Amino acid sequence: MSEPKSMGQSRTIQSKLVLPPDTNHIQSIFGGKVLAHIDEIAAIAAMKHAGTRAAVTASIDSVDFVSPALLGDMIELEAIVTSVGNTSMEVFVSVHSKNLVTGEVRLTTESFCTMVAVDETNRPISVAPIYPETEAEKRLFDSAPARRELRQQRRLMKH
Amino acid sequence: MSEPKSMGQSRTIQSKLVLPPDTNHIQSIFGGKVLAHIDEIAAIAAMKHAGTRAAVTASIDSVDFVSPALLGDMIELEAIVTSVGNTSMEVFVSVHSKNLVTGEVRLTTESFCTMVAVDETNRPISVAPIYPETEAEKRLFDSAPARRELRQQRRLMKH
Amino acid sequence: MSEPKSMGQSRTIQSKLVLPPDTNHIQSIFGGKVLAHIDEIAAIAAMKHAGTRAAVTASIDSVDFVSPALLGDMIELEAIVTSVGNTSMEVFVSVHSKNLVTGEVRLTTESFCTMVAVDETNRPISVAPIYPETEAEKRLFDSAPARRELRQQRRLMKH
Amino acid sequence: MSEPKSMGQSRTIQSKLVLPPDTNHIQSIFGGKVLAHIDEIAAIAAMKHAGTRAAVTASIDSVDFVSPALLGDMIELEAIVTSVGNTSMEVFVSVHSKNLVTGEVRLTTESFCTMVAVDETNRPISVAPIYPETEAEKRLFDSAPARRELRQQRRLMKH
Amino acid sequence: MSEPKSMGQSRTIQSKLVLPPDTNHIQSIFGGKVLAHIDEIAAIAAMKHAGTRAAVTASIDSVDFVSPALLGDMIELEAIVTSVGNTSMEVFVSVHSKNLVTGEVRLTTESFCTMVAVDETNRPISVAPIYPETEAEKRLFDSAPARRELRQQRRLMKH
Amino acid sequence: MSEPKSMGQSRTIQSKLVLPPDTNHIQSIFGGKVLAHIDEIAAIAAMKHAGTRAAVTASIDSVDFVSPALLGDMIELEAIVTSVGNTSMEVFVSVHSKNLVTGEVRLTTESFCTMVAVDETNRPISVAPIYPETEAEKRLFDSAPARRELRQQRRLMKH
Ligand SMILES: CC(C)(COP(=O)(O)OP(=O)(O)OC[C@H]1O[C@@H](n2cnc3c(N)ncnc32)[C@H](O)[C@@H]1OP(=O)(O)O)[C@@H](O)C(=O)NCCC(=O)NCCS
Ligand SMILES: CC(C)(COP(=O)(O)OP(=O)(O)OC[C@H]1O[C@@H](n2cnc3c(N)ncnc32)[C@H](O)[C@@H]1OP(=O)(O)O)[C@@H](O)C(=O)NCCC(=O)NCCS
Ligand SMILES: CC(C)(COP(=O)(O)OP(=O)(O)OC[C@H]1O[C@@H](n2cnc3c(N)ncnc32)[C@H](O)[C@@H]1OP(=O)(O)O)[C@@H](O)C(=O)NCCC(=O)NCCS
Ligand SMILES: CC(C)(COP(=O)(O)OP(=O)(O)OC[C@H]1O[C@@H](n2cnc3c(N)ncnc32)[C@H](O)[C@@H]1OP(=O)(O)O)[C@@H](O)C(=O)NCCC(=O)NCCS
Repeated sequence: MSEPKSMGQSRTIQSKLVLPPDTNHIQSIFGGKVLAHIDEIAAIAAMKHAGTRAAVTASIDSVDFVSPALLGDMIELEAIVTSVGNTSMEVFVSVHSKNLVTGEVRLTTESFCTMVAVDETNRPISVAPIYPETEAEKRLFDSAPARRELRQQRRLMKH
Repeated sequence: MSEPKSMGQSRTIQSKLVLPPDTNHIQSIFGGKVLAHIDEIAAIAAMKHAGTRAAVTASIDSVDFVSPALLGDMIELEAIVTSVGNTSMEVFVSVHSKNLVTGEVRLTTESFCTMVAVDETNRPISVAPIYPETEAEKRLFDSAPARRELRQQRRLMKH
Repeated sequence: MSEPKSMGQSRTIQSKLVLPPDTNHIQSIFGGKVLAHIDEIAAIAAMKHAGTRAAVTASIDSVDFVSPALLGDMIELEAIVTSVGNTSMEVFVSVHSKNLVTGEVRLTTESFCTMVAVDETNRPISVAPIYPETEAEKRLFDSAPARRELRQQRRLMKH
Repeated sequence: MSEPKSMGQSRTIQSKLVLPPDTNHIQSIFGGKVLAHIDEIAAIAAMKHAGTRAAVTASIDSVDFVSPALLGDMIELEAIVTSVGNTSMEVFVSVHSKNLVTGEVRLTTESFCTMVAVDETNRPISVAPIYPETEAEKRLFDSAPARRELRQQRRLMKH
Repeated sequence: MSEPKSMGQSRTIQSKLVLPPDTNHIQSIFGGKVLAHIDEIAAIAAMKHAGTRAAVTASIDSVDFVSPALLGDMIELEAIVTSVGNTSMEVFVSVHSKNLVTGEVRLTTESFCTMVAVDETNRPISVAPIYPETEAEKRLFDSAPARRELRQQRRLMKH
Repeated sequence: MSEPKSMGQSRTIQSKLVLPPDTNHIQSIFGGKVLAHIDEIAAIAAMKHAGTRAAVTASIDSVDFVSPALLGDMIELEAIVTSVGNTSMEVFVSVHSKNLVTGEVRLTTESFCTMVAVDETNRPISVAPIYPETEAEKRLFDSAPARRELRQQRRLMKH
C-alpha cells in the first residue's frame, strides 16, 4: 500500500469568467455548466491524490444552487479530497461567484463527489490513505463516514 | 392561474453520440458531460411545461453513475416534469447508454432536478398545475411530495 | 444477409435550445448549425439501423430554410431511415422550431441524407433490409426509388 | 441602387486542420462539420459583397461528399458570389482536402448556397449587382439563371 | 484615485486537464491553447485588481515554449499583477505541466501580458496603485519599469 | 536534403467572423482568441512548407494589439514562412479586422512565430530550404537572421 498523503496536497483551485457560451439568453449561467466545472475540478483533485491519469465519477451528492452567477462575473471553485475508501475518494467542492465591480462574493453551491481511481482499462485501483492537517480539514475528514453511510442507504433505497 | 397540463406534454427525448471531446483519455465519458446533458434536457422539459423562455436550475438530487458510456456509444436521455409547486417544477431524467454494435442498452443514471420558471429579469413566475395520465406517470406524481419533503430536510441539515 | 428491420426502429428525436454560440449577431441560428444537427441525427438513425459504430455522410439533398429559428427558441429534429441500398441508407430529417412562449411551431426545413455504413477502416459494409409499417412510412419508402434515380442523374450531370 | 461590384471582390479562402473534435471515432471528419464550414464561408463571401453584417442561408443545393478528409489533413475552402437577385446571392463553394505528407489534394465536395442579405431585424435588403471578370467567373455567372430555375422548380415540387 | 492594493490580492490560479480537443493529432497541446489560457488568466488577475468587468489585452511579451504538455497531463497556471501604469497593468503568468502518474512538474512557459482596464464602451479607465509584500513580489515589481521601457522601444522600432 | 521551396508556396489565408463565443461581455474579441488563431495559421503554413502532419510552436514574438475587433466584424489572417533553420521555421502572421458595413480595414496585430517540424514521436525533423520571390518576401527573408539573433539573446537573458 502506498504512503499516506495529506489532504492539503490535493487542494485544487480554479477561477473562471462567465462568458456568453456559458449562459442562457437571460445571461445567467447554466446549472449544467457549473456541474461540469464541479466534476472537472473534483477529478483533478482526485487524480492529484491517486497519482493516476484517470478518475471516474461514481456519484455526486445533491446540489442546491443558492444564488445565480451572471455574465461577466467570476466564479471560483475549490476542491479537496476529504476521505478515501479502497479505490474511491470523496471530494468536497465549493463554488463562489464574484461580482468584479462591487467585489461582492456569494456562495453558488457546494457538494461532495465520489471519484474512483481507474487504470487504462477502466478498472478501479486502490489509492493511498489520506490525513487532515488543519481544523477545517479535520471536520471534513471526521464527518466523512456519516456521509458515506447516508450514500450507502440512498443507493439501497433506489434498488 | 393557467390551465392544468398533462405530464406527457413535457416529455423530451435526446439521442447523442459520445464523441472525442466528451471523453477523458481512457475514452469514457466525463461525469460532468452527463450532468450538463441532464441539466439541459431538464430545462427543456420545464420550459415546455411552463411556456417560458427560461428556467433555472434550483437543485439536482444525488446522481449515481452506475455504468460508463464509452466513445462511440449512443446515449439516450428522457425527461418529464413530474410535479409542480408554485414556480418550481420537479423533472425526472433518465440516461441510458447503447452499444450500437451489440445493441446492449445499460442504465447510466437517473435523477430528479428542480427547475424554476423565471422571467427576463430572472424573477420566478408561477406555472400551470400538472396531472399524470399513465400508471408510470401516476407513480412519479404520487411520490413527489415525499421527495420534496426529503429535499426540504436536506437543505435544513446543511444550514 | 441480416434480418430485415422496421423503419420505426431507427426513428430518432432531438430537442435543443438555440443558445448564444449557435447564433449570428442578429440572434438567428446559423444555417450551418442546423446542417450540422441534421447530419448528426441522420448518422444516429443510420447507425441504429446498421448496428455499426460509424456511418459516413455520402450526400445531403438540397435544403431550403423556410423560416428562421431564433435565440431562445427550441428546435426539434426527427430522423428516420426511409430506404436502404446495399451499404447506403436514405434518411429523412425534419426540423421544426418552437417559440416556447407562444407555443407556435414552424417548419424550419426537411431534407434527405444518404449515409453509408463503414467498418473501423472506413470501408463500406452491407446493411439489413428495411420495411415500413405505418401509412406515412410507406409513402416515404415507396417514393425512395424515384429520389434515388434523381440523385443518380444529378451526379452524372455534375461530371 | 448601389454600384456593381466584381465577383472577385467577394472571393474568400479558408485553410483549416482536421482536429480531434471534428472527427468521429474512426477519425474521418463529420459531414456536418464540412456543411457548417461551407455555410460559414458562404456567409462571409455574401457579406463581403452585400456590405452588411448579416446574411442568412435561404438554401443549399445538394452536396455529394466524394472523398473523406481525415484527422491530420488540411482542408481548403474557397467561396465566391456567382450571381445576385434582388436580395439574394448565389455563392459557389468548393472544398478540398490535402494530405500534408504526400501533398495529395482531393476534392471533398462543391456546392451552391443561396444567401439573403438582411438588416438588424432579419428583413431582406437589396444588394449591388455583380459582374464577372475572368473566363472561369463568366462560366459560373452565365450558368446561374439555369440553376436558379432548377431551384424554383424544386421548391414548387416540394409543395 | 483609489486605494492602493496588494499584489497578492490579484493572484489567480488555474488547474486544467489536457483533453482531446486541446491537442493535435500527436497528442501534444496546441501552443494556441496555452496562449488562450494565459490571456484568460491574465484578464482575471487584472480585473481582480482593477475592479472592472472588462480588461483588454494591449500586448503579450514573447513566449518560449520550453517543454510540451501532453494529453492526460495537468497544467497549472498562475497569474499576478506585477505593476500598474495609469490604465494599464502588467501581469506575470507562469505555466507548468504535471504528469499525474510520475508527479514530474515541468515549466511550459512564462510571460508578461499588458492588460488595460476599460469601461462598457471600451475606453481605458484608471486603476488603483499596487504594492508588493513578499521578496518574490518585490523583485517582479522592481524590474517592471525596465520591462516597460523595453516594450516602449519595441513598439517604436516597429513603426 | 529536400528541394528548396518558394516562400509563396506556404502562404495561408483565413477569413473568420467574430461571433458571440469569441467575445467578452463588452463585445470585443478576446486577445487569447486572436493568439489561438495566429498559432493555428502559423502551424498550417509551417506544415505546408515542411510536408509534415505536425509542427509545434517553439515561440511567439511579442504581440501588440493595436485595435480591437468587434462582434460582427470579419478578421483576416495571413501567414507565410519567412525563413528556415534546420528543423525550425519562422512564420510571419498578420491580422486585420474589417467592418463589413463601412468596409474599413484596420491592422489588429502582426507577429512572428517559430514552429518546429516534428515526427509522430514529437522529435524535431529537418525541413527543406526556402527562397523568396517577390520584393516583399525578400525583405522578410533578409531581415530574418537579425530577428533570430534577437530571439537567441532574449532566451539567454531569461536564464
Ligand atoms: C464507479 C464504478 C467504477 C464502480 O464500479 P464497481 O464495479 O461498482 O466497483 P466496486 O464495487 O469495486 O466499487 C468501487 C468503489 O466505488 C464506490 N462506489 C461505487 N458506486 C458508488 C456510488 N454510486 N457512490 C459512491 N461510491 C460508489 C464503491 O463503494 C467502491 O469504493 P471503495 O473501493 O473505496 O470501497 C462503476 O460503477 C462505473 O464505472 N460507473 C460509471 C463511472 C463513469 O463513467 N462516470 C462518468 C459518467 S457515466
Ligand atoms: C430566406 C428568407 C429570408 C426569405 O424570406 P421571404 O419572406 O421568402 O422573402 P422573399 O420572398 O422576399 O425572398 C427573398 C429572396 O430569397 C430568395 N429565396 C427565398 N427562399 C429561397 C430558397 N429556398 N432558395 C433560394 N432562394 C430563396 C427569394 O428568391 C428572394 O430572392 P431575390 O430577392 O433575390 O429575388 C426566409 O425564408 C427565412 O428567413 N428563412 C430562414 C433563413 C435562416 O435563418 N436560415 C438559417 C437556418 S434556419
Ligand atoms: C489597448 C488600447 C485600449 C490602448 O488604447 P490607446 O488609445 O492606445 O490608449 P492609451 O494611449 O491611453 O493607452 C492606454 C494604456 O495602454 C498602454 N498600451 C497601449 N498599447 C500598449 C502596448 N502595445 N503594450 C503595452 N501597453 C500598451 C499605454 O501605455 C497606456 O498605459 P497607461 O494608461 O498605464 O499609461 C487599444 O490599443 C486597443 O483597444 N487595442 C486592442 C485591445 C484588444 O481588443 N485586444 C484584444 C484582441 S484585438
Ligand atoms: C521546440 C522544441 C521541440 C525544441 O526542442 P529542443 O530539444 O530544444 O530541440 P533543438 O535544440 O534541436 O531545437 C530545435 C529547433 O527549435 C529551435 N528552438 C528551440 N527553442 C526555441 C525558441 N524558444 N524559440 C525559437 N526557436 C527555438 C532551435 O533553435 C532549433 O532550430 P533549428 O533546428 O532550426 O536550428 C521543444 O522545446 C519543445 O517540445 N517545446 C514545446 C513545444 C510545444 O509543445 N508547444 C506547444 C505548447 S507547450
